[in-house]
Amino acid sequence: MAIGLQDGMSTLLQVVEACGIVAFACSGFIEARRKEMDLVGVFVVAFITAFGGGTLRDMLLDRRPLYWVEHQEYALLVFILALLAIPLFKHLRSTVAEKIIVIADALGLGLFSAVGASLALEAQMPIFICAMMGVITGIFGGVLRDVLCNEIPMVFRRGQLYATCSFVGCWVYLILELLAAPQAVALIASIVVTLTMRLLAVRLDLKLPG
Amino acid sequence: MAIGLQDGMSTLLQVVEACGIVAFACSGFIEARRKEMDLVGVFVVAFITAFGGGTLRDMLLDRRPLYWVEHQEYALLVFILALLAIPLFKHLRSTVAEKIIVIADALGLGLFSAVGASLALEAQMPIFICAMMGVITGIFGGVLRDVLCNEIPMVFRRGQLYATCSFVGCWVYLILELLAAPQAVALIASIVVTLTMRLLAVRLDLKLPG
Amino acid sequence: MAIGLQDGMSTLLQVVEACGIVAFACSGFIEARRKEMDLVGVFVVAFITAFGGGTLRDMLLDRRPLYWVEHQEYALLVFILALLAIPLFKHLRSTVAEKIIVIADALGLGLFSAVGASLALEAQMPIFICAMMGVITGIFGGVLRDVLCNEIPMVFRRGQLYATCSFVGCWVYLILELLAAPQAVALIASIVVTLTMRLLAVRLDLKLPG
Repeated sequence: MAIGLQDGMSTLLQVVEACGIVAFACSGFIEARRKEMDLVGVFVVAFITAFGGGTLRDMLLDRRPLYWVEHQEYALLVFILALLAIPLFKHLRSTVAEKIIVIADALGLGLFSAVGASLALEAQMPIFICAMMGVITGIFGGVLRDVLCNEIPMVFRRGQLYATCSFVGCWVYLILELLAAPQAVALIASIVVTLTMRLLAVRLDLKLPG
Repeated sequence: MAIGLQDGMSTLLQVVEACGIVAFACSGFIEARRKEMDLVGVFVVAFITAFGGGTLRDMLLDRRPLYWVEHQEYALLVFILALLAIPLFKHLRSTVAEKIIVIADALGLGLFSAVGASLALEAQMPIFICAMMGVITGIFGGVLRDVLCNEIPMVFRRGQLYATCSFVGCWVYLILELLAAPQAVALIASIVVTLTMRLLAVRLDLKLPG
Repeated sequence: MAIGLQDGMSTLLQVVEACGIVAFACSGFIEARRKEMDLVGVFVVAFITAFGGGTLRDMLLDRRPLYWVEHQEYALLVFILALLAIPLFKHLRSTVAEKIIVIADALGLGLFSAVGASLALEAQMPIFICAMMGVITGIFGGVLRDVLCNEIPMVFRRGQLYATCSFVGCWVYLILELLAAPQAVALIASIVVTLTMRLLAVRLDLKLPG
């Protein structure tokens, strides 16, 4: 988070961020185990799911150092989770865990998208590109996960709204920023919109037409 | 197009470029719809088909801003085309449309390859690398499209000459530049060679041996 | 090799490097031919297998010029090998050749990993990231080869230890460097460890648990 915010707000966002990273990593673990990958595959796929979107955004915007390079503790966290994941996932298959993952994933999607849009705006990108960068940050970890697992990316298939929630959330952030709302307000509003929309899509089985 | 040319020439190339982008995007639409992707998939695949080659080249050469970041109108164009593509492609399946796409695609291949080689030459890359950068610009959008659609890239399979036309066209450009021909001449000659060779390959079903 | 070493050492490493590049390219040839690709596919897949890991590392670290851009002779070498590969691989399928490729590949893995870790250390990355950059350099050429060939990456599947050897070798390098050992010693020790471990894994069919 290269964004300057008050301390309380900043702590809150760090908690959201950690939830998002763990949730994204978990979706990587699950997919990798379904493909019967070993520890190496489980770690790499989880890592790329968690950080792939932000890394691609940074490479497109030419920002360095990369997020996970600056925060090696997150890379270590995913590594340790990967070590635990193989024994854990054999037993744990409760629907409670799945529900928690859906919520944490939606939180992560909301945060990553808003932060991606905000960093692109900071870099003075045109507004539509800012929205695209937000969506890229939010969804491309999952796209790369599916490519590595030799599947057509889940977000491209006709499923419950996912990228669309990120896209709408990005525009909420960008419009509030253009209206000179305080950044913290724009960020929270954007995350709340993405999160709500995503949870509604899962609950009501909302899909794009076509 | 970072290349300085006279106005008339420059307008002509912009028309060729728009044709190429639309043709590349169309091949993305078709592939994405064949895989039953929704609007998100159709847009992303079309976008990456159209801009993936140039983006990879720019990231390899460390050029910024990226082409589509500077020209958000092209990103918007692909977005609007994607909105139209789903209803349109249900009905439109005439062989006339397919022939137009083959020609526009060959034009795009010729232009993108020549521009890629020329930008690499400007960046003082060694000559063989310049040819490779031209081919990367021309073909990698299609490679990424096929990877996202979970297929072995079409240009790697034994089909009608495609990358080979780009490769030959790049050398035409590079040799003319080394012979100090005016850039406009080198560019046009290169595009004409790639275009002709590609259309001949389609017409006569030319393939590489092997 | 951006690393300053004595002349004799440097020549030795160049020989190891050439072996590694040829071995990596060969694994690309074999995979591409298995998928019935033509010359274009054979060349691109071999090239990406040989240089993909280092290129990804350089893009993550924002290092330029890329290794193969500076050394166009290697790109040309792979191109010429690709021209020869199609007629050659029809006949050559001896088990002797396969054994030589396993050894050369293990040498390449050892060298690429150690060099990757060393370049990340030079760029003052945190230590765990250095180990990751070493592994990325060593294995991602193969990962990209398998993605282009529409397979789940071999190194992620439960097979004989591969990435693990690279990971251990990277730590050998990094720990020796931190202990202020001469760089040549750290490099050789790291390569020997990776090589030995990999050959033992192949001989004894060692796998990760899970």
